[in-house]
Amino acid sequence: MTEFNYEVEVDVRFRDLDSMGHVNNAVYATYFEHARTLYMDDVFGDRPEEINVALVNLNIDFKRQVRFGESVTVGVGVTELGDSSVTMEYEVRTGDELAATGSTILVAIDDEGNSRSMPESVREGIREYEGL
Amino acid sequence: MTEFNYEVEVDVRFRDLDSMGHVNNAVYATYFEHARTLYMDDVFGDRPEEINVALVNLNIDFKRQVRFGESVTVGVGVTELGDSSVTMEYEVRTGDELAATGSTILVAIDDEGNSRSMPESVREGIREYEGL
Amino acid sequence: MTEFNYEVEVDVRFRDLDSMGHVNNAVYATYFEHARTLYMDDVFGDRPEEINVALVNLNIDFKRQVRFGESVTVGVGVTELGDSSVTMEYEVRTGDELAATGSTILVAIDDEGNSRSMPESVREGIREYEGL
Amino acid sequence: MTEFNYEVEVDVRFRDLDSMGHVNNAVYATYFEHARTLYMDDVFGDRPEEINVALVNLNIDFKRQVRFGESVTVGVGVTELGDSSVTMEYEVRTGDELAATGSTILVAIDDEGNSRSMPESVREGIREYEGL
Repeated sequence: MTEFNYEVEVDVRFRDLDSMGHVNNAVYATYFEHARTLYMDDVFGDRPEEINVALVNLNIDFKRQVRFGESVTVGVGVTELGDSSVTMEYEVRTGDELAATGSTILVAIDDEGNSRSMPESVREGIREYEGL
Repeated sequence: MTEFNYEVEVDVRFRDLDSMGHVNNAVYATYFEHARTLYMDDVFGDRPEEINVALVNLNIDFKRQVRFGESVTVGVGVTELGDSSVTMEYEVRTGDELAATGSTILVAIDDEGNSRSMPESVREGIREYEGL
Repeated sequence: MTEFNYEVEVDVRFRDLDSMGHVNNAVYATYFEHARTLYMDDVFGDRPEEINVALVNLNIDFKRQVRFGESVTVGVGVTELGDSSVTMEYEVRTGDELAATGSTILVAIDDEGNSRSMPESVREGIREYEGL
Repeated sequence: MTEFNYEVEVDVRFRDLDSMGHVNNAVYATYFEHARTLYMDDVFGDRPEEINVALVNLNIDFKRQVRFGESVTVGVGVTELGDSSVTMEYEVRTGDELAATGSTILVAIDDEGNSRSMPESVREGIREYEGL
């Protein structure tokens, strides 16, 4: 398991389960998003209104099923900082066991939806936090 | 765009949107799953009780945002048939426009959750349908 | 069963099920909302930007469990039209069988969130459609 | 506001919001369910396998919109204990402010789905906890 500077606790809800009795695959994307949203609020600099991003890729490797009543930790961090894009990696754990890993790619976009350079204030916030 | 033999229409629900006003990223995983479940019922042979599968990977490339009121088509097909695993590819379209592409990997598992060979009846069903 | 002028077909998704294997109770609220949103687009007059509404009550009576693969019809109609509020009733059916009934109350609100009179164009649209 | 013996903290997820930017109405039913499930595990006696229940009614009064980043508390308690049914009441609060109140009715059912008397062990657990 990786060490992430940023970790979020998630309570598994009964509604997160599907008819197989474990957390549904789409809900991991929601756990990632929950962690990502909090990370962005805390790390992406103090001017969130400057940044408009689009998610262009989501990838999840499922390692182990998660059941109701388990306590989930989501670790998240930026691992690559391009001119217009940010790659984030994730780890979902229940206690010491790895339940899933994954990644997302965000791209900064302008009002027409075209990619643009990530604002410098955002890049600074990320570099400072992650030591990139 | 690819030609998929198997296509499913999905009605975008108001609840599928997030606070950005477009279909949330996790909901694409649900659209994939909806198409996959129907495909498995129709194509994976006539003995679904023989097969127990686990999703081990989900990958989505987001191309274009989808809004409420749009009609979505999900194409799905098996593109690789291993001994214990099945790779499926997906395409989400709104009319002629590509909204997302993606893939999943399913692995056949036994009662202990260990990978096993995919039952021959399932393999036959897929080969016949996809011409693999 | 009641006759509703406005009916919407809903495809039950695998994600709508919970670990009991039937459609989760909260998803009925989503089915109601799906029908309500379409009804409002079609019936609430031609100036939706004039109206800002808040949901103040939701009530659902569950009659019968719905499973994957069943085709669901949601009937919806306005049954009471007050000065600032609109009561809508709902019926969820699978084929000839009633799965749930329910109601919602919407209140027209101004920019501060205080109740206001429903715009006359909305009232006209509803009265004409429902014969109230 | 009522005093509930049993209270659960819920983290509002980004996915809980809808395109209006506040927690979607159906998600309150999920918050209720989350609290109800934990309450049942803790209070409904030590033999949960003895009890099979169906939700027959859900009612929610929405008081105030909840936004992302707010911390939600759900209070829940049994307020009526019939022979076969249990009425539970709920309160959703953000800090000192009431966001919603509501109720559910559960009915004990047998294997054919017919109502039956609630097992005495469940009734005892509830009476003891609630002082009914």
